[in-house]
This record gives sequence, structure tokens and C-alpha cells, in this order.
Amino acid sequence: MDLDVVFLGTGAHHPSPARGASALMVEHGADHLLVDCGEGTQERLMRSRPGLRHIRGVLVTHCHGDHLLGLPGLLATFSDVREQELVIAGPPGLSAAVDAFRPWFGEPRFPLRIVEVTPGTRLELGGWLVEAVPAAHVVPAVGWALREPALPGHLDPAAAGRLGVPEGPLLARLAGGEDVALPGGRRVRAADVVGPPRPGRVVVVSGDTAPCEAMAAAAAGADLLIHEATFLAGEAPLAAASGHSTAGQAADLAARAGVRALALVHTSQRYRAAFPAVMLPDDLDLVRIPLPDRGPPVLVPGGGAVTPRP
Amino acid sequence: MDLDVVFLGTGAHHPSPARGASALMVEHGADHLLVDCGEGTQERLMRSRPGLRHIRGVLVTHCHGDHLLGLPGLLATFSDVREQELVIAGPPGLSAAVDAFRPWFGEPRFPLRIVEVTPGTRLELGGWLVEAVPAAHVVPAVGWALREPALPGHLDPAAAGRLGVPEGPLLARLAGGEDVALPGGRRVRAADVVGPPRPGRVVVVSGDTAPCEAMAAAAAGADLLIHEATFLAGEAPLAAASGHSTAGQAADLAARAGVRALALVHTSQRYRAAFPAVMLPDDLDLVRIPLPDRGPPVLVPGGGAVTPRP
Repeated sequence: MDLDVVFLGTGAHHPSPARGASALMVEHGADHLLVDCGEGTQERLMRSRPGLRHIRGVLVTHCHGDHLLGLPGLLATFSDVREQELVIAGPPGLSAAVDAFRPWFGEPRFPLRIVEVTPGTRLELGGWLVEAVPAAHVVPAVGWALREPALPGHLDPAAAGRLGVPEGPLLARLAGGEDVALPGGRRVRAADVVGPPRPGRVVVVSGDTAPCEAMAAAAAGADLLIHEATFLAGEAPLAAASGHSTAGQAADLAARAGVRALALVHTSQRYRAAFPAVMLPDDLDLVRIPLPDRGPPVLVPGGGAVTPRP
Repeated sequence: MDLDVVFLGTGAHHPSPARGASALMVEHGADHLLVDCGEGTQERLMRSRPGLRHIRGVLVTHCHGDHLLGLPGLLATFSDVREQELVIAGPPGLSAAVDAFRPWFGEPRFPLRIVEVTPGTRLELGGWLVEAVPAAHVVPAVGWALREPALPGHLDPAAAGRLGVPEGPLLARLAGGEDVALPGGRRVRAADVVGPPRPGRVVVVSGDTAPCEAMAAAAAGADLLIHEATFLAGEAPLAAASGHSTAGQAADLAARAGVRALALVHTSQRYRAAFPAVMLPDDLDLVRIPLPDRGPPVLVPGGGAVTPRP
């Protein structure tokens, strides 16, 4: 199943003509997770492929305006059209922030669940397992690790043949993890013909943070790390003072974590990276993350911007 | 001096892919007035010709989210770059709304003055005389009449010639309204060679409102009436129940008020009008309003959307 990230707002601090306030959507089938929701997010969603309809939850990294001021408008729109529960999860302060927004969206008809989290908090959202991971910013902040559930192992046709399993439905049931009885009555265990479950893909979003070793540990081996890069090399003191990272620090952290690819966001400048698999997505670009045996994550410029679904 | 209106958000209720939340800018030299500030206004401003730098005041028609949720982000950006006083004027409830936004922009370095108004309140903002005019909506609401100061009368060269005024600087001083002494000592009064002051242009913005005769009276003879048209003909009961107008009602009101031109906003559908000088601007369209002797107001599609100033 395709795993895509659509970058909705890649700007730092204030929106600019080139880069909107922070927001991105992770798409996995009909399970979409919105990470952060800066001003204008709902409009960019309406112009983007994922749209608004499959959002299972909103994961907030921290309660600064450039990551959150799109929420009252999004909830006002949802108040008219949504019936499904919405979970909004983020660090302490989130509940108060959402309560302050209530005059703008009232009492929604859909169940709205606000979850305040600390690093280590795990949630199941749609088909996702998400976990708040440590971050180091000037206000309470977390990153988010989004984990695809483990995938079934591959069926070994040769092993199945050696055990006398005929082509057909029995093979399919074994591939699905079910033990079966052959026509002669002999039982074949799925575990004998199907490899071990394959790990699901992992996307980690840093939010705003200074370089954080605990985040690097949480991101170890991730398929895609989306890390902030507010500052350029040479601005490390500025970055440290404001709880942000330089692009070089993000690349170093990605290398230490051994991630498959790195996308830099929360940046306003071009960056040539030392880390080889670095991407600098623009708003409405998309990163597609194949399983490791199908190739590396690829950046698709404009891939998230299509006519919205009717 | 050019008098232009740049339509930043012409949508109704929620933003849509086609039309942003309510906002428009009235430009007159370096005196810009923003009327309403829906979500995403600052981003559209950054992509528009007027930009953010010449805003003298923000005139709010009423405190619904689609007219106001761009304010905290705009004020956050202003907190970093603005030094000049900003006046935000609107109906009762505005102060509380702005106070609720304070966590998102803190204590700005520029003077911020919130003015709650009722119909009849007049303010001087930059070179403008603005007046809150009556509106009829489901919450406290006003329209806004923006009046250009009176312009000097035209010099009558023939009358000046008859009084013996020579070509040159004396003529210019008379044209500027100054009485002068001719070389022989005889005095010539400006009033004898210059026509009466010419009325300045008037732009009236309805905000959200049911058809309102008091607003029609306030808009009598206006150069441009920008009126909401949330509903289409045949939806008058819906419009009445929600404190809105149909496009036909707006056109009828424009005809009764004898305005020079009518622009319909807060609409999501095409409309063919009975009132002849009707315009249906899209986001980032511009209406230029010449003085009456220079021709009618004209709609310039995309005229407000240019590369922002550096």
C-alpha cells in the first residue's frame, strides 16, 4: 500500500509567499494523519490530493501559532461536514488552546477527543501506531513517530511445494497466515511456508527542535525523517538559543539515526546537504515511501497538488 | 490618485479551493485599509500587490471566524516587523476576540488600538474618513463606508484670464486654494477662479447582512458598493433566516442606493445581475474606481496579484 507524505506548509515561523505555515499529511490508504495545522492548512488541503475527508487524527508537535492557527478554521469546517471521531494529540497546553478556539467552532457534532501526550505516549489512530517522541524546543514539544503495522511475511512457494501444498486457495490461506489441512488430511502450518512478519514503514516528524539525541534514537532506521532546518550552517548559536536546528545538524542527526531518507522543512532557504538522501520539499510536494525492497523514498514535486475530490 | 479595491477572499462561510475567507483591501496611495481578515489573509496579502506594509487599520464587520481568524497570524507577523500604530475597529465583541488571540501574538511592539463601534461611529484612519454603517446580521455587525476626503475644485483658466492672472506660479497657488496678489497689487481670491471642492469617492462594504435600508441610505450615491450575496434568487427565506442576502436583493439595494457600481462577494456561485454595473470579483481581482468624470469603476481580473514587493 502506498505510503505518501504531502507537504502542506514547509515555512518557518511566519508563512511567506513561497512557504505556508507548518502542516503535512501522511497518507496510508484511507488513514490520513495531519501533523501540525498552521494557518491556511484547510485551504491547502482543499487544493491537495488528500483533501479533508480521511483525516483520522491531528498530531500537534507544539502549541505555537505557526503550527496551530489553522485548527479553529478546520474545526469550524468539520463542524458542518464531519461525523467521524477526530483525535487531536499534542503536548501539554493543547487542551487549553483548543478550548480557546471553541468560540470559532462551537460544539461539533462529531466526537472530538483531545489527548495531551508526553514522550513515550502511544496511540492507535486508524491503522497507525503513533508515538510521541522527545524533542527539545522552547515550549513543551514532541516529535511524532508514525509506524505502519507489521506486514505479513512473504510466502515461500518452494517450501510450500516441498510440503505438497497445491496451487490455489490453500496457498492463499497460508500466505494470509492461516494453518490449513491438505486434501489428504495432513496439516501445514503457515509458519513453515511464510517468512517472518516484515516490519512496517516508519515516518518520524521532528516538529520544532534543537538536535535531540533521544529523537535520533527514536528515529533509528526510520524510512523517512522529516526534520526542521530553521537555520543554515554558521547559525548554530542562533538555532541553539531558539530551540531550533541547522540544516547541517539535521543531516548529521539523520546520518546517526541511519534513516533511509531525510526531508527538511521549517526552512526558508535552499540547502545542499552532506547527507546524501536529503530532500527539500516545497508546499504541495509529495514524498512516496516504498517498502525497502522496492526502492528509496522519492520526492515528487507538486505530487500532492491535484484537483480536490468532489 | 488611484483608488483600488483588491479582493483577497470572496468566499462565503468556509474557504473553498476557489474562494478564500473574507478579506479585501482598499488602496489609496499609501493609505490601505483592510476590511475583514479571514483565515489565510496574510498569505494572500503576501501574494498581492498591496502587501502588508501600508495597512493603516483593519475594519471588522462582525466577529465570525470566516471574517476574523486571519487576525492572530497577521498580528503575530506584525509583532516582528511593524512599528506604526494599528487600529482595529469593529462591533462589540471585538476586544474580547482580540484578547483571546493574544497568546498567539503576545504584546506587540507597535501600538495596537482596538475600537468597538456602533453604526454612526466615525474614525479618521490615515487619509480616510471611515464610518460604521448599519447592518442586519445574526450577531452584532456593521458595514463600513470609506470616504476619500474632498478634492480641491477645478481651476477655471478662463476666469483666471479675465481677472488678469498670468500663466505661472500664481495660477498654481490659486489652484491650490490660496488667495494671491497680482504683480500690480490687486488681490485675486481662489474662490473666484476655482470651482467648489469636489466630493471624494466613497466605497461601502456591507459585511454579512440581510438587505438593510439604513445601509442603502448610507450607501446613497457611493462609487462602489461591495455587498454580500450568499444566496441566489429563490433562496430568500434561507437568506432571511441566516441574516444574509440574495444576489438579487443586493442588486435591488444597489439600484435603490444609486451606486455607481456593485461588487458581489461572500458568494460561491456565478450570478447574472439585473443591476447593470454588477461585478463578481474572484480572489486577487481588483476594482479600480476613477473619479466620476474619468469613467466607471472597472474590474481588473487578477489585477491585485503580482509579485510582492521585496
